Amino acid sequence: MSDTPRFEPLDNTVVPRYAGIPTFMRLPYAPDPTVLDIALVGVPFDGAVTNRAGTRHGPREVRNMSSLIRRVHHATGVDPYAHCKVGDAGDTPVVPMNMMKSLELIEAFYKPLAAAGVIPLSCGGDHLMTLPIFRAIARDKPVGMVQFDAHTDTGDAGYGGEKFHHGTPFRRAVEEGLLDPKRTVQIGIRGARSSSDYSDFSHDSGMRVIYIEEFYDLGVDKVVEEARRVIGDGPTYISFDVDGIDPAYTPGTGTPEIGGYTTHEAQRMLRGLRGANLIGADVVEVSPPFDPSGNTALVGATMMYEILCLLAEARAGK
Amino acid sequence: MSDTPRFEPLDNTVVPRYAGIPTFMRLPYAPDPTVLDIALVGVPFDGAVTNRAGTRHGPREVRNMSSLIRRVHHATGVDPYAHCKVGDAGDTPVVPMNMMKSLELIEAFYKPLAAAGVIPLSCGGDHLMTLPIFRAIARDKPVGMVQFDAHTDTGDAGYGGEKFHHGTPFRRAVEEGLLDPKRTVQIGIRGARSSSDYSDFSHDSGMRVIYIEEFYDLGVDKVVEEARRVIGDGPTYISFDVDGIDPAYTPGTGTPEIGGYTTHEAQRMLRGLRGANLIGADVVEVSPPFDPSGNTALVGATMMYEILCLLAEARAGK
Amino acid sequence: MSDTPRFEPLDNTVVPRYAGIPTFMRLPYAPDPTVLDIALVGVPFDGAVTNRAGTRHGPREVRNMSSLIRRVHHATGVDPYAHCKVGDAGDTPVVPMNMMKSLELIEAFYKPLAAAGVIPLSCGGDHLMTLPIFRAIARDKPVGMVQFDAHTDTGDAGYGGEKFHHGTPFRRAVEEGLLDPKRTVQIGIRGARSSSDYSDFSHDSGMRVIYIEEFYDLGVDKVVEEARRVIGDGPTYISFDVDGIDPAYTPGTGTPEIGGYTTHEAQRMLRGLRGANLIGADVVEVSPPFDPSGNTALVGATMMYEILCLLAEARAGK
Amino acid sequence: MSDTPRFEPLDNTVVPRYAGIPTFMRLPYAPDPTVLDIALVGVPFDGAVTNRAGTRHGPREVRNMSSLIRRVHHATGVDPYAHCKVGDAGDTPVVPMNMMKSLELIEAFYKPLAAAGVIPLSCGGDHLMTLPIFRAIARDKPVGMVQFDAHTDTGDAGYGGEKFHHGTPFRRAVEEGLLDPKRTVQIGIRGARSSSDYSDFSHDSGMRVIYIEEFYDLGVDKVVEEARRVIGDGPTYISFDVDGIDPAYTPGTGTPEIGGYTTHEAQRMLRGLRGANLIGADVVEVSPPFDPSGNTALVGATMMYEILCLLAEARAGK
Amino acid sequence: MSDTPRFEPLDNTVVPRYAGIPTFMRLPYAPDPTVLDIALVGVPFDGAVTNRAGTRHGPREVRNMSSLIRRVHHATGVDPYAHCKVGDAGDTPVVPMNMMKSLELIEAFYKPLAAAGVIPLSCGGDHLMTLPIFRAIARDKPVGMVQFDAHTDTGDAGYGGEKFHHGTPFRRAVEEGLLDPKRTVQIGIRGARSSSDYSDFSHDSGMRVIYIEEFYDLGVDKVVEEARRVIGDGPTYISFDVDGIDPAYTPGTGTPEIGGYTTHEAQRMLRGLRGANLIGADVVEVSPPFDPSGNTALVGATMMYEILCLLAEARAGK
Amino acid sequence: MSDTPRFEPLDNTVVPRYAGIPTFMRLPYAPDPTVLDIALVGVPFDGAVTNRAGTRHGPREVRNMSSLIRRVHHATGVDPYAHCKVGDAGDTPVVPMNMMKSLELIEAFYKPLAAAGVIPLSCGGDHLMTLPIFRAIARDKPVGMVQFDAHTDTGDAGYGGEKFHHGTPFRRAVEEGLLDPKRTVQIGIRGARSSSDYSDFSHDSGMRVIYIEEFYDLGVDKVVEEARRVIGDGPTYISFDVDGIDPAYTPGTGTPEIGGYTTHEAQRMLRGLRGANLIGADVVEVSPPFDPSGNTALVGATMMYEILCLLAEARAGK
Repeated sequence: MSDTPRFEPLDNTVVPRYAGIPTFMRLPYAPDPTVLDIALVGVPFDGAVTNRAGTRHGPREVRNMSSLIRRVHHATGVDPYAHCKVGDAGDTPVVPMNMMKSLELIEAFYKPLAAAGVIPLSCGGDHLMTLPIFRAIARDKPVGMVQFDAHTDTGDAGYGGEKFHHGTPFRRAVEEGLLDPKRTVQIGIRGARSSSDYSDFSHDSGMRVIYIEEFYDLGVDKVVEEARRVIGDGPTYISFDVDGIDPAYTPGTGTPEIGGYTTHEAQRMLRGLRGANLIGADVVEVSPPFDPSGNTALVGATMMYEILCLLAEARAGK
Repeated sequence: MSDTPRFEPLDNTVVPRYAGIPTFMRLPYAPDPTVLDIALVGVPFDGAVTNRAGTRHGPREVRNMSSLIRRVHHATGVDPYAHCKVGDAGDTPVVPMNMMKSLELIEAFYKPLAAAGVIPLSCGGDHLMTLPIFRAIARDKPVGMVQFDAHTDTGDAGYGGEKFHHGTPFRRAVEEGLLDPKRTVQIGIRGARSSSDYSDFSHDSGMRVIYIEEFYDLGVDKVVEEARRVIGDGPTYISFDVDGIDPAYTPGTGTPEIGGYTTHEAQRMLRGLRGANLIGADVVEVSPPFDPSGNTALVGATMMYEILCLLAEARAGK
Repeated sequence: MSDTPRFEPLDNTVVPRYAGIPTFMRLPYAPDPTVLDIALVGVPFDGAVTNRAGTRHGPREVRNMSSLIRRVHHATGVDPYAHCKVGDAGDTPVVPMNMMKSLELIEAFYKPLAAAGVIPLSCGGDHLMTLPIFRAIARDKPVGMVQFDAHTDTGDAGYGGEKFHHGTPFRRAVEEGLLDPKRTVQIGIRGARSSSDYSDFSHDSGMRVIYIEEFYDLGVDKVVEEARRVIGDGPTYISFDVDGIDPAYTPGTGTPEIGGYTTHEAQRMLRGLRGANLIGADVVEVSPPFDPSGNTALVGATMMYEILCLLAEARAGK
Repeated sequence: MSDTPRFEPLDNTVVPRYAGIPTFMRLPYAPDPTVLDIALVGVPFDGAVTNRAGTRHGPREVRNMSSLIRRVHHATGVDPYAHCKVGDAGDTPVVPMNMMKSLELIEAFYKPLAAAGVIPLSCGGDHLMTLPIFRAIARDKPVGMVQFDAHTDTGDAGYGGEKFHHGTPFRRAVEEGLLDPKRTVQIGIRGARSSSDYSDFSHDSGMRVIYIEEFYDLGVDKVVEEARRVIGDGPTYISFDVDGIDPAYTPGTGTPEIGGYTTHEAQRMLRGLRGANLIGADVVEVSPPFDPSGNTALVGATMMYEILCLLAEARAGK
Repeated sequence: MSDTPRFEPLDNTVVPRYAGIPTFMRLPYAPDPTVLDIALVGVPFDGAVTNRAGTRHGPREVRNMSSLIRRVHHATGVDPYAHCKVGDAGDTPVVPMNMMKSLELIEAFYKPLAAAGVIPLSCGGDHLMTLPIFRAIARDKPVGMVQFDAHTDTGDAGYGGEKFHHGTPFRRAVEEGLLDPKRTVQIGIRGARSSSDYSDFSHDSGMRVIYIEEFYDLGVDKVVEEARRVIGDGPTYISFDVDGIDPAYTPGTGTPEIGGYTTHEAQRMLRGLRGANLIGADVVEVSPPFDPSGNTALVGATMMYEILCLLAEARAGK
Repeated sequence: MSDTPRFEPLDNTVVPRYAGIPTFMRLPYAPDPTVLDIALVGVPFDGAVTNRAGTRHGPREVRNMSSLIRRVHHATGVDPYAHCKVGDAGDTPVVPMNMMKSLELIEAFYKPLAAAGVIPLSCGGDHLMTLPIFRAIARDKPVGMVQFDAHTDTGDAGYGGEKFHHGTPFRRAVEEGLLDPKRTVQIGIRGARSSSDYSDFSHDSGMRVIYIEEFYDLGVDKVVEEARRVIGDGPTYISFDVDGIDPAYTPGTGTPEIGGYTTHEAQRMLRGLRGANLIGADVVEVSPPFDPSGNTALVGATMMYEILCLLAEARAGK
């Protein structure tokens, strides 16, 4: 029908890339995201951080820089907008001063998407946000995960008994039966830890932890191979924390750890996931107040695009 | 009818101020701005500057900072959204590398608004943009103008014969019969000039030029009185160049001149225009790349709000 | 006794001002602050903000910039360290992801100080922190207050029923019997509000609200006179929110409002409080991530020094 | 003769590197550049950009950072000032608001240089500037080119028919018979494109396009070998767009694309061109307003120096 | 003669203001400054600071921002270049790691200027630089001085006996018979001091110290009157430390003190010195590394221009 | 005894990482550092730089960012605080305007440490600071050194005869018999030099110079092997200049040279020194004013931690 909205980026030869109201990828805003195949969602919440805040501004600044991203992938030739209806679903509601309430609101936002079969690609926000997304999309069956990150985020309660903070989402997700640790791979882990048992849960639960040293020893191709082996054919989620990348590329994040991989290496790993059974993804921990050059937000936007191409193929292939 | 869109800012207790897709004042985007009473329009063009560029990014960053602006004016009690339908009309099309073509596109954008009786409140962009707006709204009858500015912008052709640049809009507007110089007042003029006759056109054509020295000698109240005398009851446009304000407040602009008025003084002057016969306005020359703290964009957004309250009363009163 | 620690700033001719471990005013760290007359305390919490976070970093950066502050006041001649034992008490414990728990921890930190008769001068942190300080020091008898601020911070529950956030501390303080509204004066209030009844509580409870317009109409001397009239001789607290000052001076804050007073005007008002019955104070809402030049932190540090001189005289006079 | 000016950098043990009037490499300003062997020229024009402006400030900031560059190459031992007379020829005239006129002025600046056999090494400015340089130096015979870039810049008319913008110089240069596509190699191409046929002109005209993926697969040495094969012995121009490098190194550019090569890899490639028949070069797209740390300008200055060493050997060898 | 160089700013309609090699005011570089009437000189030295360094970069960045300054004064109508030959004399030699040697080199640079009757207008650099300038120009007869500053800079030896640092130039100058304290006025003094006798030398030697409080109480006109009374008709030097101005305007300085005057007030005071017997001047303590918006350098450049107009009239009148 | 202070980092679950008074690694301040096994010392001096200053602020900002560093090394499992008493010894006294006096003060600070057998791990400050440290710890027997650096720092007198500046420490150290050139390896040397004989002293004295080109040709493992061969079993010092790393990672330094190694490569090299006979170390040339993202200070803090783990094992093993 002629009045179906076309879910395509604004034409940059009419409205230049720096102009217009900044939505993700210059796509139309979809107040009812259930009409989409893939929903780009912002989660403007950083109340679970233990260190520097600021990722509440991540979705807005990633939207801003995503204006630079064009439509056809130069290496794979994929045009995600030819495959799927993709739109900007806006930001989830949150209550800045109430983390537990915010977790509920985030979950509630994703539930109708899950019910409608819409694949969510989210932009954070601190890493705890993946937990309520899992609660919305993985209640029935635990998902597998490829996690790009400097930290395992499988820590335990701290700060006098706080079970929920941005260092604990994946321990909680396993405990709640949302994440299958045997089908989880964590890539780029590094940085001193508070105690010697910090990452024990990852190991004990059966996650595959690829420390940055092993990453460099194996090389990108072997790491991809190993990740594909771990996730197998089951439904898989990509969680991309920008602090997995070296902070020379992504200084704008709350808990930077030096000595990470490059953006090119990250892009290659993501492309290596083509054909996997992908059912959702997020890019988290972009913190604009610590990003003077804006490069972190550009990296975040580009990683969203790389993942969008994967999701579009996955969605179209079903 | 129930499905008429409500033109009100997003509720910040549901979507916090830093969240959501940034439109002007968190208002709905109005793809068809002719349904509005007052249209907030971005003009993302800086191709007419003679010095530092960057105001092409002005509309986007003013939108961003305008999220901080709430709805009811603390001093006057005006709630513009109770009076009028106000929305974000998006950005005008422009061609970044072609100034003359951009002037046409800008004019074309405003013509339907003028035809529909919609009052435009625009955000630039460099100051030449006021010329095509005048061409769209003042063809029938020249308007009066209150211009807040460090520069008269009534220079002549330069750079080897260029008639149109951001130092010439008001000479051109007078020549084209769009602006009534006798009903024009320029407030805050200062800064060394390239030659001793730079501002002669303002004086010769009968504009009232209030240099910054006279501004301080008179004081805000007398300046307002004088401005009201000049513009009288006729249709009047407000053109607010942020470089009229001192660059301690608004460093993010292309041609800063030290020694200007404060934001509070500017706010007082604007409020002094309550009840004037206002038919449009703009806030121009916000240049985010030179605005590290973001304060210039915040000033721009707040001045837009101050003016919006004036326009809403003017529109509602008719 | 010879081994009593001397509570004096580091000698800058031995350790230059930019050097050394940055404590408030280069004073000794006092792990047991009950030995002090006046305790400088950091409250690194910003979990109650409704907009931009970052004031959790306020205490550290104010400490950093306070290295520039020398000891003898140039206008009054007061040397606070000659009057009183003043030291840096460190930061209160907080739990970043749990506001309610943090309020308890903050209160618990101040209780022994209150019991020991130590006057607290605190550095925030968001403005809700004043509430737990009041709970520690004003349980017995409500205090009066001179509040420098752009906002009344007497709002009500929002965000789906949140009673506690950085816009509500003084409504809660009145309700809890900690703050005497009849002896409260708020100076510099401005900025559009979400609804027309936002500040009603201030007015209805009997606070004296001096909007910025009245501030300019009265002038500094009359404002001081009025403030002195309101607070009278009773015990009085100074709460200095840096957003009362114009954001040209203090851009590094979460909720900037243009059109405020200057730092010189603020200094004059503070000095006008000499001789008042002062029993505590705070400087709040310094947000370093939004303060590229560092000037906001310098303003915060200098205001702490101005207040310290007042408190030292008050303490010594008793 | 004793009064021949010596074209050597200022002695840094008399005037420290941060001091003095900043010319390129601290060399003398040559108001008559035809006396030089190699002229360092600024082209302060960014009116052809389709996205973020700012490269108009490139020449000035690269001059500023070039003060850090010393004279003898550490790896090759080349001292360019021992071989050739090298000076700063200043900036070309441009008309900021008129792209077509600026193209003429730029061309006119280079024609006398070409006539005098002076090799130009230019600093931009946006990439369209290479076109008028080619018009001045390659009218008689098309040149070959080694292009370091993230983009092919062989796009076609856009924005409603604009043939000339910073995405089209090399299509235009081929059409005008100035550039030999068969002797052109483009290294580092990447980034999503607006449509699937964006780079077709490069391929169809016979240019050798080395995408970033192929760059990494081949390695620096093989890429150099391939570049040398393509350009052969004919006269060759180096065009170095700093966005070919990863934006972690060069964030200050208008159209950054993540995932590029490192500066060390770029230096190695440049050094691999020793002995080629080089007749001119440029370093373009340095945009200081987006370069908070100044590193992009330092990279630009260092790449100019690396190329200067090549040109000096080439010039001296003839 | 036709080949006498014309000492006029570059024509901005040929070379735009942001372009070209940045000399002070876009004037020609004068390698032999003795041909000038007024020499603009950079002193890139900050080795005498006791706190934050960075003013060694002052001259370069002030040159950069001075490109924005046009030629005819808007309020007085003075065109300095019509009166006098004014040029950029470059930077004095200095030895960064040797303060005492640098003082000698600075003095040696100014001696030929003094011998040739050239009026120096200098740009610093830290405030100690005024001492060697005085040694070059005031050996015969002590000068009077109008000093704009937050600090008296009449401190004594410190740091274990260092007589020379940026807090002592004017005590040393009086002791050396270069400065007449009876004809010295210091305007804007403020800020806590290390001990209560810090400014005693100013008072004891007979300088007129106008603290910032007195400045505001008197108002600009009376302060000017008082300054004129103090300096009388004798030869007078203007020393303008940008920290006299409030750091909201000039954050980029080593020892900022909040609560200073505005740039407009400073401009008015300078203009009030028209007709005084001025024989030299400097603008000091611009520290670009602490000046993210560049406004401090712009203020420095504009103050240089205001002073240049005074000096040009003074020089032409003799 | 129970009242022996515990030299352990603050518990981050009580005081979050961004909170508290920033000491190195959140360790206790040790006013008497002779009680320690390893003393972390700041040297806030940059008076020996020949270019951009600012490293005087290095220790403070490295302390600030070191709050992010946790305690147990992720790759080696080392917990330095389990092995040794480690504390923050504060900053050495310095006289900002007197380099020679500062060298004496620095040496005097380290002598008691050396006498007490405390291993110093220092944070600068410019690189000349290593010379007075050597004078304190290596008078009896010259040490070997692993130097990470872009520059050999073995230059000779310059600037009119200055023997001591930040380009000469290691020539002076060899001449004074403090450093054994045969046991010295310099890794990462690069960048054009002022004359062709700049590094001759390194070569002539027998140091092993690994230029960056050789670094890349050999690879990290072979470079480590070579470094171990050079230093052998004798007492060895690590001097880590952050400009050895590429300025994409460490822009905040005075003399950046593009084309360096990555932080990961540096970490690998440091870890390769496990088991060496290490007797002290420093991390130098962190210059916060040129470090807008803070990443340089984070790199500096992390390298201090990597080295601390080495020193702790070395100290514990004796």
